[in-house]
Parts: sequence; C-alpha cells; structure tokens
Amino acid sequence: MNALNISETMQALGLQAKQASAQMAKAPSAIKNKALLALARLLRSQTEALQADNAKDLARAQANGLSEPMVDRLRLTPKVLETCAQGCEQLAAMADVVGEVSGMKQMPSGIRVGQMRVPLGVFGMIYESRPNVTIEAASLSIKSGNACILRGGSEAIDSNKALARLVEQALLEAGLPATGVQLVQTTDREAVGQLIAMPEYVDVIIPRGGKGLIERISRDAKVPVIKHLDGNCHTYIDAPCDLDMAVKVTENAKTQKYSPCNATESLLVARAVAADFLPRIGAVFAAKGVEMRADAEALALLQAVPGARLQTATEQDWSEEYLAAVISIKVVAGVEEAIAHINQYSSHHTDAIITRDHMHAQRFLREVDSASVMVNASTRFADGFEYGLGAEIGISTDKFHARGPVGIEGLTSLKYIVLGEGEVRG
Amino acid sequence: MNALNISETMQALGLQAKQASAQMAKAPSAIKNKALLALARLLRSQTEALQADNAKDLARAQANGLSEPMVDRLRLTPKVLETCAQGCEQLAAMADVVGEVSGMKQMPSGIRVGQMRVPLGVFGMIYESRPNVTIEAASLSIKSGNACILRGGSEAIDSNKALARLVEQALLEAGLPATGVQLVQTTDREAVGQLIAMPEYVDVIIPRGGKGLIERISRDAKVPVIKHLDGNCHTYIDAPCDLDMAVKVTENAKTQKYSPCNATESLLVARAVAADFLPRIGAVFAAKGVEMRADAEALALLQAVPGARLQTATEQDWSEEYLAAVISIKVVAGVEEAIAHINQYSSHHTDAIITRDHMHAQRFLREVDSASVMVNASTRFADGFEYGLGAEIGISTDKFHARGPVGIEGLTSLKYIVLGEGEVRG
Repeated sequence: MNALNISETMQALGLQAKQASAQMAKAPSAIKNKALLALARLLRSQTEALQADNAKDLARAQANGLSEPMVDRLRLTPKVLETCAQGCEQLAAMADVVGEVSGMKQMPSGIRVGQMRVPLGVFGMIYESRPNVTIEAASLSIKSGNACILRGGSEAIDSNKALARLVEQALLEAGLPATGVQLVQTTDREAVGQLIAMPEYVDVIIPRGGKGLIERISRDAKVPVIKHLDGNCHTYIDAPCDLDMAVKVTENAKTQKYSPCNATESLLVARAVAADFLPRIGAVFAAKGVEMRADAEALALLQAVPGARLQTATEQDWSEEYLAAVISIKVVAGVEEAIAHINQYSSHHTDAIITRDHMHAQRFLREVDSASVMVNASTRFADGFEYGLGAEIGISTDKFHARGPVGIEGLTSLKYIVLGEGEVRG
Repeated sequence: MNALNISETMQALGLQAKQASAQMAKAPSAIKNKALLALARLLRSQTEALQADNAKDLARAQANGLSEPMVDRLRLTPKVLETCAQGCEQLAAMADVVGEVSGMKQMPSGIRVGQMRVPLGVFGMIYESRPNVTIEAASLSIKSGNACILRGGSEAIDSNKALARLVEQALLEAGLPATGVQLVQTTDREAVGQLIAMPEYVDVIIPRGGKGLIERISRDAKVPVIKHLDGNCHTYIDAPCDLDMAVKVTENAKTQKYSPCNATESLLVARAVAADFLPRIGAVFAAKGVEMRADAEALALLQAVPGARLQTATEQDWSEEYLAAVISIKVVAGVEEAIAHINQYSSHHTDAIITRDHMHAQRFLREVDSASVMVNASTRFADGFEYGLGAEIGISTDKFHARGPVGIEGLTSLKYIVLGEGEVRG
C-alpha cells in the first residue's frame, strides 16, 4: 500500500469510528454487556480456529529468529484466551459508569448543576506483540462506550485480525456497529503517523510499548496522549519504622518480579535506622543475587554482608529503571531529604514510605509528586486490578486528565448538566 | 531582545516556575489565603499608583488609534480594581481543594486506595488586552497551589507589570516564593512560541483570546492546552413544552447579551409546536431588532410577524457563531432530529432543550455531546460563577481533562494514594 492509499484508508477508519462513536456512547448497558458476553463465548468456542491463525504469526516469528521470550508473548494458548474471556465477563458484571451523575447542587439562581460521565469518543491504541491486548482494548472500549481504532504489532497481525473478526461478530450480535472497534489491517508504519494526526476523528491516543515508541508518538501526536514512560520507583525506609515490615515490603517491592514498571529500583534509608536495616535487607538481596549500587555510607554498612554484590552508585544510578536484579541504595538524613531526592530523580510513577510516624506519612503523601504514593505497602501494588479499577488500559505518568493506572473512568470525561424550571439569567 | 535572549529568558522563567511550584503545592491553606488577602489589600491601597501605570497603556492605545471599546477594556477603574480585590477575598474564603482525598476503599489485598487532589504544577496563560485577567489568573494560581507564567497583551504591558509587582509583594508577605507567579516582561511574540514549547517546565497552557490565536497555539503547543474555541449554542423547543417558558428562556438565551460565547445562536423548534411558538418568539425578536435566518418551514410561520427581519438560512448559518443580533431558526420533526442536528453543527459548548417530556429530557441530556447540556434553562447560565466554581480560568470545549467552565479543580489532578500495614503482593 502506498502512502496515499494508507492516508485514505486511515481517514476512512477515522470517519467510521467517529460515526460509530455516537452509537457506542448512547448504547444501553444491557446491549454493551451482551456484546461483551458474546465475545467471551466466541473466544471459547473459536479457540482452535484462533490458534490456527496464531500459528502463522508464531511460524513467521520463529523463521525471523525472534527470541523465545518474544515468541512466547505472541502465543494464544487456551489459557490466555480463557483469561481474555473471563476479563470480558468481569467487565459485563461491572456497573456502567457512563451516564453516572455526580455533584448535583442547586445554585442561588435556582438551576441545579451537576456532572455526567460520558465517553471520550474515539481512542486510538498502539501496542506491540501480545495479541491479547486486542481483546483487552476492545472490551474496555465497548464497556466505556467509546469507539476505538487498534493498531497492534506486525508480528501479531494474523492473530489480531482473527480476534478483531470475533469482536466484530460480537458487536453485530448485540446490535452495535461493527465499526465500533476497528483493527488497522496494514502493518505499514505510515499508518501510525496517520492515526496520531487525525484530531477530527480521534480524541486520544494510548501507546503501549517501549520508551522510544512512546516518546516518538508523544512528540508527533496532534491529539492528547495517555502515556506511560518509565517507572523508577522508590521505597524509603523512615525512622521510626517497623523493621520487620520494612524488610518484608522492600523484598517484595524489589524481588517479587524484576520486570514490571512498579518494581522498586531505588532504596532510600533514614540514617537513624540504616545500621539496623541495611545489613538485614543486604542479606536478603545477597541471597537472591540482587546487585546493590550504594552510596559510600550505605556501602560501609553493607560491607560485612556475606556474598553481597556491591558497587559504588554513580549519579546515573539514581535515575535508572533497571528492570533487573539491581537496586540503588542511598542513606538520607530523613523524610525531607527523601522527598527531595524522590521528586528530583523519580519518574513520578510510584513511590512508597515505610514509617510509624504519622506526620512523616502525611508529608510524604502530600509532597511526593508521583502518580501513586504509598505508605507501608509494596510499590508492586500500583496496578489497575489491585486498585479495583476492574481492568487497565495503561498506566499514566502524566498529570493531565488521568494519572496512574487508567481504567474505564480514564476513558471518559465529565460534561456539565443543568436542570432548570425556566430560569433565565439576570 | 533577540530570539536567543528571549529563549534564554523564557527558559529561566520556566525553571524558576518549576522550582516555585513545589513550594506552592505544599503551602498550607492559611499561607495561600494570607497571600490572597494581602493582594486584595494592595489592590485597594495602590489604586492610584495602578491608575498612573494604566494611564501609560491608555495613552499609547489612544495614540495608536484603538477603538473606544478596546480602550475601555484596558481601563483599570477603581471599580474594576475593587472587583479584583473582592475576587481575591472570595477565593480566600473558599475551602482548599488541594489535598482533598476521595474514594478511599479497602481492597481484597488489605491496602486502602483513594485519590488525592494535587496541583498540576505550572500553567502558562496567554491572554489579550484586559489587565484584570492578570489578577484573576494570579489569584487562581495561588489558591490552586500552582505556579504560573502569565503572558498578557502588549497593549496592557504597563498595567500588567504594575499588577504583577503587587502579586509578587503579596506572595513575599505570605512567605511564598516571588516566582510563584511570573509575568513575561517582553511583548515580543517569540516569547509565546517559547512558552508553549517547554514541556520540561510547563504542564498546561491556557489561551484566552480570538479563535485564530487559540487555533495557532493548539497547533504549535508541545504541552496540553485547555482551550475554548467558538460557542455555537442551541436552544431546542420540544413538544410538549410550556410555551410561556419557551418564549421567556429563548428571549433570555439570545437577547440578554449578544456577545458572550454562551448566547444562543440557533433555535430549533419541534413541528408540533412551531405554529404556536414561532409567531410569539418572532414578535419578541422583531421588537428587539434580531434578524432571523430561517429554513422554509419556519419562514412560512414567521411571515406574518410585523416588522420581522427575515432571511432564508444557508447551510453556513447552521454552523455560525454570530455574537450579534442574528439567530438561525429551523423546524425539526422532534427530539431525535434536534439531537442529530446539534451533534452535527454545534461547537459542543452549550445546548438546551425546553420540554415537559421526561424521556426527551433524559435522551437530550445523555446524547447531546456538549460541555454543558441543559433542560429548561437559558444557555447563558454556562459560566463558572453560575455553576458555583467560585472563579473561572476559562471555558473548555475539549473533552480531555476539563470540560466546560474551568475553575480551581480544572487546575488540579488526582494522584492515587495507598495506605497499607505492610502488605506485599502475592
């Protein structure tokens, strides 16, 4: 397809999405839930057919020499498809937030003013490899009353096409427009450039993928972007604190999994508890093979830990998102220095304090400028499911519109509604 | 000042604003209110000095041949300054929304999750002529815990500099950083280009002015923009409705003032009430000299009105924001056609239905895709003060982040806060 054809194709997708969005927005909850349940049913009944299409992607990936973990992410196993089906059923079981009215108050003029939650309109989603994201995005789009245009990775194109056909069938079964959820059928990169530059049709772009991709999209997009850059998360051990809790939570925050964006990458320790705390957590890290990049003061306290893998931290380490068995460690004077360090080096994703001091907890909550701020809990909890959002379309590290895990509410906005009895302005 | 110097100056303003924003964000309510009350006091005690600076702007405007209404908008009369002072006092009397915690719920894991309202950080405001906007923006910035960079019109530069000095003095008196509110001191246009392209320092841009300015800023900005484009507002007269109410509300919506963005520009009338309603409203418009641009069916019903100024409406009329004694009029089959027409032609600012039918009211509220949707009230009510927001920094015709009149809440975002007792992720 040449650039002109791609431009025409994307414009057509945009127009169709815009037209479908009005139908999606006014669809009753029962109809949207019918589509979600139909999709769950189809995912189960068509598991074998889906695996046949998925096999084409897998064969191509293997022929292209993709690494085994990459091939694995592409795989639509019965278990992956069952999880997708259950996700659709869970969304169907949730109350509908579209149309929810809040804050209705009567004004001195007599009018009553409140706000109604309404869909954003059309969102464009750009993602890589894992084809189950197609179902996650489609189901969130249906439940939130938005239309969407999905652009998955080229490695997963056959799987995505097969999944998109099931979504279309489910929409039609429920009496919703088939164009409520559309998949970009071409793998040409030019399509992304078009998708992010159609403000007349697309209200917001949600990219999921590597930092380079997201930075490029944010720079070039002509519409708002709900973006998630890196997660350089901190755990700060305050004084006084429950040292057993501090060890347990820090171990979980760093080592439960190394790859998630909400894993702790940097450990700050109040000087008053450092001599007690650091040897204990150092022993845990040593046992698990976690490399410690520490400042001089922390290093001195960690030297005696048997088997510790120690390095002197560089300035660069304070900003690093390792996503690996590495952690930076620094001793600080107290909560004030911890907050200042975090606000300087954190990626504003998730930061936690472990403390018994109420005033320190309140200051930390108020002053740390991050999407999620925690007291006495593992940073690993920063997640749409753990926060009770039902499902998550992404995690926003922005402040505008949505911050932190983005669920259905992040795909909606509030319009003002006014109820009067013939009032006029004086 | 050359382009390089302007770039350096704006970068310095940005860095200072960013640094000040942390102080502004954590300032206790009492301190912010102290600054607001000091500002009110200074505006009153320095009225004469301010008028001396204002006189320089007025003399230059007259020498440059500005029209009398334009010169009038520049004028800092004692009354204008008193209104500014009262606005500051009203903000000081309001509860502080910064730090407000909402939706705290306990999750199955044991953690409690809620959201805390926090300032956006730094906003840049770009506005024209009226110097009192400097005080409105500065006071909203202080109350909402944001830092801001203000860029007023070149016509008002001497007034704005004098007002900004008082703001600085009020900030210092309260112990807040003088750089919490900064005025761009140069009138060079290049400064605007710099201000809207510093995502490292500025979180959001709020332009106020003509549509051309706002479109240009939206196109070129590298940060989110809270923008207000045009206001093509509709009033739809449904069947059945209270005809006396319909006449009274329509008259107010169109003729109470012609220039505001929330004035009704287009009147839709259900066929079942058109023969009763149109001659009555036609007589009102004829008496007030309002030109009616009507479709054929409405024209036929308006012909007999004595003194009516009638025109056949063109396709262009349905999209027009007249801001003048002109209204477009169309007969429609009923609520369905009215909603479709509004969603096609409205600028998504404010649209109203006059009805007695509950189902029609509900459909209109739900399906009209506008920032404010009203039942049985004048579109003129779409305003931050009338909505009880306390003060208004602008009106957003966007869906993302803030929609409709934007007050202090629109200058804030919600971060997640998590309170645990040592929970870890399983």
